[in-house]
Amino acid sequence: MTRKEIRMAGFGGQGIVLSGVVIGAAASVIGGRFASQTQSYGPEARGGACKADVVLSDEPVDYPMAQDLEVLVTMSQEALDKYVGDLREGGTLIVDEDLVRQLPEDTSFSLYRVPATMVAEKELGRRIVANMVMLGALVGITGIVSGRELEEAVKMMVPEGTEELNISAVRRGFELVSV
Amino acid sequence: MTRKEIRMAGFGGQGIVLSGVVIGAAASVIGGRFASQTQSYGPEARGGACKADVVLSDEPVDYPMAQDLEVLVTMSQEALDKYVGDLREGGTLIVDEDLVRQLPEDTSFSLYRVPATMVAEKELGRRIVANMVMLGALVGITGIVSGRELEEAVKMMVPEGTEELNISAVRRGFELVSV
Repeated sequence: MTRKEIRMAGFGGQGIVLSGVVIGAAASVIGGRFASQTQSYGPEARGGACKADVVLSDEPVDYPMAQDLEVLVTMSQEALDKYVGDLREGGTLIVDEDLVRQLPEDTSFSLYRVPATMVAEKELGRRIVANMVMLGALVGITGIVSGRELEEAVKMMVPEGTEELNISAVRRGFELVSV
Repeated sequence: MTRKEIRMAGFGGQGIVLSGVVIGAAASVIGGRFASQTQSYGPEARGGACKADVVLSDEPVDYPMAQDLEVLVTMSQEALDKYVGDLREGGTLIVDEDLVRQLPEDTSFSLYRVPATMVAEKELGRRIVANMVMLGALVGITGIVSGRELEEAVKMMVPEGTEELNISAVRRGFELVSV
């Protein structure tokens, strides 16, 4: 693995930051590689666009800002509109299909539509785990960490007592894209 | 406020990352300023030193890495030993007094010893909120955000149902340093 840059974006309250932290931990603490994870935000973050950048590498990460984004996951239209310009040509774009309706015209992207929020709400009964469904899908699509690494990191990072629900959500997301 | 750099460090499982996220949110989403929050880690992070850097500013934060650390909070001896060299001369050093026994000889630092883990365990009955006690102390000592901003950010970022415990811990930490 060389340097890989991933951004997850959506709105406040979707657990975007936790998603970034989990991927970073899966790769580093569990997976034995190096990771950095950054959020930068301002006053506009209240209820608005929210993003978490993750950089994964085989070597220590000196510069944690995304410079050449390979994967963009968006869970809101605003986040897509704001950040799609940062995704490199030929990159991977993953969207929550019920929250992002207007897709970009650039057809060089590999585009995946994942019904993360719908599945979290209707199948798992908890809209709050949409981020975990999306994480499972992200890992199923990109293989940036293994399914086992992801599950171990989720167990480590989510609140005590919620491990089972979160793992179910991750597995469901993984299945959604493993056709 | 000009650029202010803060690092919180300890070991995995102490909630160091969440502490960084809370301070970032308190300043930005609640406080109307700008913040970035970064974790960088590698394989050694498992059970080992863990750090979260926060940069607060009146302007958007372009470079999120700490370059001139003004405040260092350490909740383990290993973290102190590893990071004290990054604290600037005359900076503020805050340690959990039961977990950090050997203090640096540099007497230019403003040094504060906070019994965060002891108070979390003995007074609040939950060792896990030591990070929140420490956040309250950090804010009481430095004023980097207001007590109200901190409490609102805690409510926003901690798991549902744990708000009350976490707020109590923050207030207790604030009191500990308000002599």
